Amino acid sequence: MNFPKLSRRSVLAGIGSVPLTAAGVPEGRRGRPAEPARGPGGRRTTLLRGADLVLTMDPALGAGELGTLEDGVDLLLRDGAVAAVGRRLDAPRGARIVDVGGKIVLPGFVDLHNHLWQSSIRGGCSDQDLNGWLGGCNRVVLPKIDARDMYRFVHLAALDALRTGVTTVVDWVHPIPYDTSERYVRALDDAGLRFVYAATQSAADLALVPKVKKELLDPLPLASAQVSVHAGMSVGRELRQFHELARDLGVMLNSHVLEHRDDRKDDPIRALREAGAFGPELLMNHAIHLTDEEIALTGAHDVRVAHCPLSNMRLASGIAPLPALHRHGVRAGLGHDGGTNDTSDMFNLMKAAVGLQRARHEDAGIHPTIPAVLRMATLGGAECIGMADRIGSLTPGKRADVVVLDPGTLNFAPRFDWTSQIVLNGQPPNVSEVFVDGHLRVSGGELLHVDTARVVREAERAAANVRAA
Amino acid sequence: MNFPKLSRRSVLAGIGSVPLTAAGVPEGRRGRPAEPARGPGGRRTTLLRGADLVLTMDPALGAGELGTLEDGVDLLLRDGAVAAVGRRLDAPRGARIVDVGGKIVLPGFVDLHNHLWQSSIRGGCSDQDLNGWLGGCNRVVLPKIDARDMYRFVHLAALDALRTGVTTVVDWVHPIPYDTSERYVRALDDAGLRFVYAATQSAADLALVPKVKKELLDPLPLASAQVSVHAGMSVGRELRQFHELARDLGVMLNSHVLEHRDDRKDDPIRALREAGAFGPELLMNHAIHLTDEEIALTGAHDVRVAHCPLSNMRLASGIAPLPALHRHGVRAGLGHDGGTNDTSDMFNLMKAAVGLQRARHEDAGIHPTIPAVLRMATLGGAECIGMADRIGSLTPGKRADVVVLDPGTLNFAPRFDWTSQIVLNGQPPNVSEVFVDGHLRVSGGELLHVDTARVVREAERAAANVRAA
Repeated sequence: MNFPKLSRRSVLAGIGSVPLTAAGVPEGRRGRPAEPARGPGGRRTTLLRGADLVLTMDPALGAGELGTLEDGVDLLLRDGAVAAVGRRLDAPRGARIVDVGGKIVLPGFVDLHNHLWQSSIRGGCSDQDLNGWLGGCNRVVLPKIDARDMYRFVHLAALDALRTGVTTVVDWVHPIPYDTSERYVRALDDAGLRFVYAATQSAADLALVPKVKKELLDPLPLASAQVSVHAGMSVGRELRQFHELARDLGVMLNSHVLEHRDDRKDDPIRALREAGAFGPELLMNHAIHLTDEEIALTGAHDVRVAHCPLSNMRLASGIAPLPALHRHGVRAGLGHDGGTNDTSDMFNLMKAAVGLQRARHEDAGIHPTIPAVLRMATLGGAECIGMADRIGSLTPGKRADVVVLDPGTLNFAPRFDWTSQIVLNGQPPNVSEVFVDGHLRVSGGELLHVDTARVVREAERAAANVRAA
Repeated sequence: MNFPKLSRRSVLAGIGSVPLTAAGVPEGRRGRPAEPARGPGGRRTTLLRGADLVLTMDPALGAGELGTLEDGVDLLLRDGAVAAVGRRLDAPRGARIVDVGGKIVLPGFVDLHNHLWQSSIRGGCSDQDLNGWLGGCNRVVLPKIDARDMYRFVHLAALDALRTGVTTVVDWVHPIPYDTSERYVRALDDAGLRFVYAATQSAADLALVPKVKKELLDPLPLASAQVSVHAGMSVGRELRQFHELARDLGVMLNSHVLEHRDDRKDDPIRALREAGAFGPELLMNHAIHLTDEEIALTGAHDVRVAHCPLSNMRLASGIAPLPALHRHGVRAGLGHDGGTNDTSDMFNLMKAAVGLQRARHEDAGIHPTIPAVLRMATLGGAECIGMADRIGSLTPGKRADVVVLDPGTLNFAPRFDWTSQIVLNGQPPNVSEVFVDGHLRVSGGELLHVDTARVVREAERAAANVRAA
């Protein structure tokens, strides 16, 4: 039987040793919740008190690969960063105290691949594979979405993600006009999560990408940029252009790779290699139909992978060779992939990532294990986008992206093996609190200062406009 | 693009033509919600008014294989049965009116395979396959559960199922003492859902099975019985005994079959055939590792199958040959399978059933399609247990097991293809109302007259007892 009893260690790490800076987050923007309590000197301070289980994702802080701490663990957030994790931490004067007794605390989830605008085509072309869905839904609907409606679709999807514990989303954005980009970015920023905006354009309009970065993303503390592409020999010249642009901007290249078996014809790995892009600054989404040689190359070149099992199931794309990629040391995280997975549920995504490989290989020990998939959904995702120095674990000094789970529900209780229960029993309503950069965004399972009914109504209006177009 | 616009038909079926009998449900039992409003003559009557979408699952009532009706559809429930479905139905005097404008109505879900007591081992042995899990969790914990704690585990799991829209659950119950059986049945009955209690015992205690049926199940209007077994040549003699017992009792035989590849060694199909049990009165759970010949035999003999994809993924059992079974005309439904899938979420179960086959076969048209899986989760399940004359569709005359979904949520909206969105976007919180046998059990997403926090607390107490044992 398996009643995990980890050693009860008293951990007091980092307090006072973290360089604390002003968070620099503009206040009172549209749609943003109010700031948490401020202590002396205007520092935003929150003490999460008395968690029953904390998965820090930092082996230096706790037991095992997930850095697990149990029974009465406090977490101090200050100026948007994790200041300390340990027992009986003092609450600084003026700190907001959040009682997390009986609850589970872990880093916010990283959704490594999404297209949030595709909330506009939820459930669409559901009898089609990738190519049928692209032709029948994706490419038909996108041109019908104007800037105002784009805001509505993205805002709904971003709030859906945030409410279910996603604190960082990587959004691969299709080519859209500049004014639509402006609304897209605003919707993400208004939702209040951390986001990576992967922008692309036709080669002729390539100058729009740095403009979006400079004018729309750089001013926002929670935003960062990538350059997005589709890879293949047929677009080899453009691929080199995009890669050079990404390099010049100092950001990652983000590409769909071998999602459909037919994509092999265009030999995207060769194209990425010839463009000089095949390295640690490349994030490959899906990466299903790799040859054994390409799997080895992916590991050897430290290329990153976004695994999207629910999308791959929905679109009949196949089963990604995740265990083999893992054997070759490839860093991988998990992505929902927008309209093709259709909705945000990191619990389901983790469970599918585990179960799909197990069912295929008839091996309960196959990668990803339960701990491995929890890591993929947090620190692993952060590593893939070069942000592990800032997010992905509860290491003091990192930004305070934190999720609190309430296990006291009919679908989750009673306690037997909570770490496994997160993956196997968790559902979005178990997400009780969400902090992004120290800001409390979800409390008691509800988005703070968001009129959800209005957000849904606005999205329905946008959907009606698309139907009429 | 796919904006399904079904013909708007005015359907007024069955009203007045249904033999109406007193429901015969004892009132005011522990844990049971209050009765709905009663009209003249003490008849319980509810009018669901103005649904935007109704999936009746009866092609005679609406469009397509799901019998779909759209825009302003009413559903009249009387004396625990569906009395009528159509437009602008008159509300009988004294009827409870439930506004379902903007909502989706469908028959309650049938969970064709579960072991509700296994809420005691949620998340347990999560790195083990079937046999490791059986040895490390299932067989270790069951003997430690006394009658009182059995009530607590089963009550929590049954309420979890009901809250997520399961109105009928088939529970394969392991051998337990009579007094524990009494509490098991009471927990199910108190939860207020329809249930099939599949009982087994050692061959020496076989007389307990008819006793459980006669004394515990027969008096309950929502309960029915099956005889449960494990099939194999090594237990051939017992298998014949159990089969004869089931036949004598006039109930189905319910067996685990070929869940693990190693089960082939014991040749369960041959054993079932030699015992004379291989026919329409047999429900086989899992049925993963069938030979082609056995698949054909399953169809030819009209044997029923409970498909449990989430359990099969979790336990690394394999991928069931569902498309091949379908080609041979096998009737199949969906099961959660207790502690191995770990929690009740029919949306996730449907999505996994669709996605697992699609990912394996790289074919978006493979069985089950979206409509097929919705049918499996309702009418298909009812057919498998010989209850399609009473439940599984909204056909007037059938018992009123009804689920109302609220699509106005961040994970579900906006509307694009609602029927597909049920499977691909639905989550348990979308379940807004649940009726069982005409009784309103869930309203506004909450279980009526259930102190959920207390149910969780009681289950945690039981879990603590098991840990201490």
